[in-house]
Amino acid sequence: MKKRSRFLQVPIEPFTVDPELKADEILDKMERISFQGRSLGVAHRVWQKMLADDVTIFMGMAGALSAGGLRLIVAYLIEHRYIDCLVSTGANLYHDLHETRGQHHYVGSSRVNDAALADDRIDRVYDTYASEEEFCENDVWIGDFVATLEQRPYTSREFLNLLGGHLWKTTKQNGILTAAYRAGVPIFCPAIADSSIGMGLSQGRQQRAGSGHIDVIGDIIESANLVSRRPRTATVVLGGGTPKNFINQASVQAEFFNPKVGGHRYALQIVTDVPHFGGASGSTLEEAQSWGKLAADAAQVTVHADATLALPILVTALARSSAAIVKARTRPNIDPSGREMLIDGLSATRDKFEESE
Amino acid sequence: MKKRSRFLQVPIEPFTVDPELKADEILDKMERISFQGRSLGVAHRVWQKMLADDVTIFMGMAGALSAGGLRLIVAYLIEHRYIDCLVSTGANLYHDLHETRGQHHYVGSSRVNDAALADDRIDRVYDTYASEEEFCENDVWIGDFVATLEQRPYTSREFLNLLGGHLWKTTKQNGILTAAYRAGVPIFCPAIADSSIGMGLSQGRQQRAGSGHIDVIGDIIESANLVSRRPRTATVVLGGGTPKNFINQASVQAEFFNPKVGGHRYALQIVTDVPHFGGASGSTLEEAQSWGKLAADAAQVTVHADATLALPILVTALARSSAAIVKARTRPNIDPSGREMLIDGLSATRDKFEESE
Amino acid sequence: MKKRSRFLQVPIEPFTVDPELKADEILDKMERISFQGRSLGVAHRVWQKMLADDVTIFMGMAGALSAGGLRLIVAYLIEHRYIDCLVSTGANLYHDLHETRGQHHYVGSSRVNDAALADDRIDRVYDTYASEEEFCENDVWIGDFVATLEQRPYTSREFLNLLGGHLWKTTKQNGILTAAYRAGVPIFCPAIADSSIGMGLSQGRQQRAGSGHIDVIGDIIESANLVSRRPRTATVVLGGGTPKNFINQASVQAEFFNPKVGGHRYALQIVTDVPHFGGASGSTLEEAQSWGKLAADAAQVTVHADATLALPILVTALARSSAAIVKARTRPNIDPSGREMLIDGLSATRDKFEESE
Amino acid sequence: MKKRSRFLQVPIEPFTVDPELKADEILDKMERISFQGRSLGVAHRVWQKMLADDVTIFMGMAGALSAGGLRLIVAYLIEHRYIDCLVSTGANLYHDLHETRGQHHYVGSSRVNDAALADDRIDRVYDTYASEEEFCENDVWIGDFVATLEQRPYTSREFLNLLGGHLWKTTKQNGILTAAYRAGVPIFCPAIADSSIGMGLSQGRQQRAGSGHIDVIGDIIESANLVSRRPRTATVVLGGGTPKNFINQASVQAEFFNPKVGGHRYALQIVTDVPHFGGASGSTLEEAQSWGKLAADAAQVTVHADATLALPILVTALARSSAAIVKARTRPNIDPSGREMLIDGLSATRDKFEESE
Repeated sequence: MKKRSRFLQVPIEPFTVDPELKADEILDKMERISFQGRSLGVAHRVWQKMLADDVTIFMGMAGALSAGGLRLIVAYLIEHRYIDCLVSTGANLYHDLHETRGQHHYVGSSRVNDAALADDRIDRVYDTYASEEEFCENDVWIGDFVATLEQRPYTSREFLNLLGGHLWKTTKQNGILTAAYRAGVPIFCPAIADSSIGMGLSQGRQQRAGSGHIDVIGDIIESANLVSRRPRTATVVLGGGTPKNFINQASVQAEFFNPKVGGHRYALQIVTDVPHFGGASGSTLEEAQSWGKLAADAAQVTVHADATLALPILVTALARSSAAIVKARTRPNIDPSGREMLIDGLSATRDKFEESE
Repeated sequence: MKKRSRFLQVPIEPFTVDPELKADEILDKMERISFQGRSLGVAHRVWQKMLADDVTIFMGMAGALSAGGLRLIVAYLIEHRYIDCLVSTGANLYHDLHETRGQHHYVGSSRVNDAALADDRIDRVYDTYASEEEFCENDVWIGDFVATLEQRPYTSREFLNLLGGHLWKTTKQNGILTAAYRAGVPIFCPAIADSSIGMGLSQGRQQRAGSGHIDVIGDIIESANLVSRRPRTATVVLGGGTPKNFINQASVQAEFFNPKVGGHRYALQIVTDVPHFGGASGSTLEEAQSWGKLAADAAQVTVHADATLALPILVTALARSSAAIVKARTRPNIDPSGREMLIDGLSATRDKFEESE
Repeated sequence: MKKRSRFLQVPIEPFTVDPELKADEILDKMERISFQGRSLGVAHRVWQKMLADDVTIFMGMAGALSAGGLRLIVAYLIEHRYIDCLVSTGANLYHDLHETRGQHHYVGSSRVNDAALADDRIDRVYDTYASEEEFCENDVWIGDFVATLEQRPYTSREFLNLLGGHLWKTTKQNGILTAAYRAGVPIFCPAIADSSIGMGLSQGRQQRAGSGHIDVIGDIIESANLVSRRPRTATVVLGGGTPKNFINQASVQAEFFNPKVGGHRYALQIVTDVPHFGGASGSTLEEAQSWGKLAADAAQVTVHADATLALPILVTALARSSAAIVKARTRPNIDPSGREMLIDGLSATRDKFEESE
Repeated sequence: MKKRSRFLQVPIEPFTVDPELKADEILDKMERISFQGRSLGVAHRVWQKMLADDVTIFMGMAGALSAGGLRLIVAYLIEHRYIDCLVSTGANLYHDLHETRGQHHYVGSSRVNDAALADDRIDRVYDTYASEEEFCENDVWIGDFVATLEQRPYTSREFLNLLGGHLWKTTKQNGILTAAYRAGVPIFCPAIADSSIGMGLSQGRQQRAGSGHIDVIGDIIESANLVSRRPRTATVVLGGGTPKNFINQASVQAEFFNPKVGGHRYALQIVTDVPHFGGASGSTLEEAQSWGKLAADAAQVTVHADATLALPILVTALARSSAAIVKARTRPNIDPSGREMLIDGLSATRDKFEESE
C-alpha cells in the first residue's frame, strides 16, 4: 500500500456559512483555511497564547490607524491589558488627542479634487478628512501644555504620560493617551519629531525658551531596561514603521547587557508592506530571527492585510475568547508616571543600561 | 461665525469593542471607519442593495480560492442565489471537483523545501499542499467523462453543467459545480484551456478522437445574450483575472447590439492587485466607467484585501443581514442545462448576438 | 583567529555613477547590489545563459503591455529570436493589431473624470487612452477576416498565424503579430475568449454562421507536444496571468507522456503580484519546483517590478550584450503556419499527445 | 467630419530597441510609454527642472538603501549638489558608516535557514547579509566618539555633521556622511532613536553620563527655518517613511510663520507603498496638495518601484543629461557645521521659529 506523505497531515476545512457565528468562532474556522484568511485565524490563536503565558506584550502601531477609526480598540487593549507597553508613531497619538478633545475625522473620498479641499483647509488622509484649523488649534493646546513643564529633557515615555494625564483631567474622555495614563501603560514614541506632537513641542519652545526637550536616546535605554528586567516578551505589530523596529531594538539592545534576554517569545504582525523591497516594515519574522530579535522557537504569524480591516474583527474575537484569560493574567507591574519608570516597584533609569549575567 | 466646510459631513465613528457582535453588526460599524475597513463595510451594504434590486448578479472568481477553503462559501452563494451566474478560472472548478470527490487540500507552509515536496509528489500553493497523484487521478476521471460526450463543441457553460451533473450523480456532495448544477446557475470558464479542467478535456480527446471540444467563442455570445435579455446587471469580483474582464466584456458586447444595456448597475470587487501597473485585475471601477462597463451612477466599491480573509466575514454577515431579502428576491429564471441556455423560458443561442433597439 | 562565516562570500559593491554607461554595463553592476535592483541584474544574466544554451524559450505576456508601449520590444525579441514561442493574453495581441493598423494609444492621466472620457468615448487603461470607435472598427476588421476562414475549429496558434499574415499583407508594418508571422514564431492565446480578439471572432460568427471556432483544447495538446519534442525549455514571464500557467502546464502535461521532460531549465519572471495571496501570477519559482514545472537545478530569478519599467532597460542591455550569442544560437525549427505545426520538419498534432519513453 | 477628442493628443510611442542607448536616452524614450515606465521617464524630466530652477532640493531616504548598494549614488548626489539637504533614517546612515569604515554587506539569499544565520551571527536584510560582530564594533566606535562630545543636546543635524567629520578624518573614504560633511550638506535624522546610530548614542551615554543627547525638537525648528529663509523648495523622496513626512512637515511648519512659503514647487517620489491603506509612505502627491505640503501647480511624479532598481538608472541618466545644468546651478549656501546652522551666512536657530510677513 502507498505510504502517505508526511506533508499531508491536516486537511483544509472549507469555511461553511453560519449567520449566527461570533467573531471568535469565525476566526477559529479560518485557522483551517489558507493564505491570509488562515493567517488571521492563527493571529487570534497566537495572541491568546501570549495572554496565557507570563510575558510582557509590546504593541507597535504605525499608519493612520487613529484617524482611521481604531483608537478605541487600542484604548480597549490598553485598559484591559491585552498589551503592556505601546510604541506608536506621533501621528497616531496626535489624531487620538484630536478626537479625545472632542473633534473629529470625517468620512471622505480618495477621488476628490484636492485643490478644492485645500481651499476649504481640509486635510486628506486617503478617504478621510480633517479640519486644518482644528489641527492648528491642537498644536497650540499642546504647546501651551509643554510650556508649563520643567525646562529639562523628558523621555517620550514620561512626556506622553504627562500629556495623557493632562488630557484626562481636561476631557475625562477615553482614548489611547488617556487609557494609557489611567492603566499605567507606558507609551514610547521614538520618532516624535516627525509628527504634529513634535510640532506642538516645538511651539512650546517658541512660547518659552528651554522647553520642549525630548530625550529620545533615553527612550532607547529605558525600553531596553524594561526588557532586561522582564526578559520574556512578545510583540504585536500593526503596520511596521519605527515602532516595529524600536520594539525589536529594545530586545537586541537588552540582550547586549543581559544574556537572559533571547528575543521575543511571540510575534504577531499585521502589515501591508512586502519583504522583497528590503524595508523593515515588510520584513519577515524569519528575518528577525537571524538578528536574534525573535527567539528561534517563537510562535509567530504575519497577516498581510490593512489593520483597519483586520483589527476590528481580531479584537472583537479576542475580547470574547480571552476575557477569562485576561482577567487571570499576571500583569507586568509598570509605573510609567515618574521621571524614572518603575518596574516591579524598582526604578529603571534612562541614563544607564542595566547589566546582568 | 465660521462656516463649516461641505466636506465635513459624516464623522468617523471609532470602532468600539463588543465581544458579542455578529458579523453583520461588525460590518455595519466598519462602514463608519476608514481605509479598507470601511470598504469592507461598504461592500456589505452594496451587496445588500444588489439583492434588493431587480438585477442579475454575476460573480467572478480568480486566484486559488477553492483550494484556499472558500468553495463552500461560493456553493452557499449559488444555492441561496446570492448570485445568478458564476464566471471562474478553471483551477477553482478543478480544486472544487477534487474536494467534492472526497480528496483534500492540506494545511502547509510557505517556508518549506520545495525539492522535498517534489520528491513526495506534493504540489504547493503558497501555504497549502495537495497530492499530485490525486490530481492525476482527477484528470483521468474528467477525461473518462469527456470521452462519453458527443463529438461536437460544447460551450464551457454547457460542459460545466454536465460535469456538475455527473459529479452530483457520482458523489451527492455539495460544492461549487454540484450546487450550480442543482440550482440552475450557469458557470462560464473562458480560460478553461489554462487549467487542469482543460487538461482533463485534452485527455478525453486522447482517449477518443474528436471529443474534448470547447466553444469558448460561443461563451462570449451566450454571455452577451444573457445580459441583453436582462440588461440590469451587477458584478461581484473576487481576485480579478479573466473572470473580471469576461463579465465586463459581456456587458460591453451586449450593449453593442442592445442600447438598453448600459453597464453594470452595481459593482463590488475584492482584489489584491493595484491600479498603477495597468493590469485589468487591479483596475479601478472608475476606469471601468470610461469603457461603459459600469453605469455612471452605479453603486460600487473596491476592497483591497485577500478574499480568503474578507469573504468568510462578508458572507457570514450577508447571510444574517439579508436572509429575508434573498428569500423575497425575484431570481432571474435561467436554465443552463441544455445545448442552448434558456432565459425566462426562451432559448439563448451561442451562434448569434440578439439585436434590439 | 576568528573564522569567517561561509555566508559572507561576495561583498555588495555599491553602485557608482558613470554617465556614459550603456544598459548592459548598468545591469552588470546592478548584479552586485541588493533587492530588486540585483534581481534585474541577475535577470539579464539568466536570459544570456538561456540564449547560450540549447533550449526552446517560451515567453508569456499579461497586463496591458502592448497598449503600454512594449509591443516593438516584443516584436524585436521575436524577430531576432530571443524567444521561440509566445503565449499572450488576447488584449496584448489586440492592442498590437490596433497600432499595426496605424492607430494609436495616447498619453493620458490616471486622475481624470471618467464620466468625461465616457462622453467622448475614450477608453482608459490607467494613464493611457484609446478611442472606442477605433476599437469597434478593429472588431469589425477582425470579424470580416474571420468570416473568410474555413468553417472548422482552428487552434489559437493557427488562427493567430493567419491573422498575423493577413495583417502583414494589409499593412506591411512591424508588430508582434506580424513579426511572429514573418519569423515563424508560434503564438498561443489560451484565454482568447476573454479579449477583443475573441469579440472579433464572435462577430465573424455573427456574419457567417459556423465560423469563429477556436480549439483551445487543441492548443493544450500542441503546446505539450512542442515541449515533448524539444524537452529542454526556458520560460520568460511578464506579468503572470494565463500565459504563465499555460507555459508551465505545457511542461507538466508533456512530462506525463514523456519522462525526458523535466521542467524548465531556466525561468525568469517580471511580476508585480506577490506570493502571499496564493494566486498563480505572484507565485514563486520555488513553488513551481514542487510541481515539477521547473527543474530542481534551474537557473531562475524573479524581478518584482512593472514590466514597462524593467523591460526597456533589460532588452536594451540584452541587445548589446548578447547580439553575438543570438546570432550563433541554434534556433528551434518550428513552422507554425499550417493546420498542424511542424517541429524540425515533422507534424505536431493537436489531437493526440505524443508518447515517449 | 468627426471631431477628435481633446483627450487624444500625444500618442504613445512604442519603445524601440537600440543597444547603444545611454541611460538618459532610454529615459527620454520611456516618457512616451505608459504606467511606471512612463513615470520613471517623467521623474528624470522633473528632476532636471528642479535643477534648472532656483530651488532648495530636499531628499528623503528610507528603506535599507545604503545596505542595498545605493550609498555611493547618494554620495554622488550630495557631492555634485543634485540635492541640498538630506533627511534619512538612522539605518541608512549607519550602514553607510559601516562601509565607509571598510566593512561590507554581502550578497545573500532570501531563501535561507535563518537559524543557521543566527548561529553564525549573520544579520539578514532580505537577500543581503552582514556580520553582527562588525555591527557591534561600530556601535562601540560611535559610542566612543559620542563620549568625546560636550554634555549638551545636539540637533541630529549638528551631530551628524560632526560624525561625518570624524569619519572623514579617520577613513578618508567617500560615503553619504563624509560627502555631506565635505560638501556642507545638512543631514537630518528625525527618527535617530530608532536605529543603530541611536544605539551608539546610548552607549556613549553608558560610557559617560550626560552625553548622547539629541534635540530632535530642535531639528523641527531648524528645518522649518531653512524652508522659511529659502521658501522655494523641492522634494525627492526614496521609500517614504519618516523622511518623507519630515520634509513636508518643515514646509507646513514654516508656512505657519511665513506666508511666502507655499508648499514644495517640485515633488518626485519613488515608493513601493500604495495609497489605499492610508499610510503616509504610500500617500499620493495629490493628497499632499490638500495639506499645502505641495504647491497646487507643482511639477510632480510618483514612481511605484523599488529604489534599488530605479535609482541607478535614474541617476546615471541625470548625470549625463544634467551635468551642465548642475554646474551652472545656484547652490543654496548652507553651512551645517556649527551649533547653529548658517544659511546665506546668517545663523538659523534651533530655538525659535523665524516669523515673517
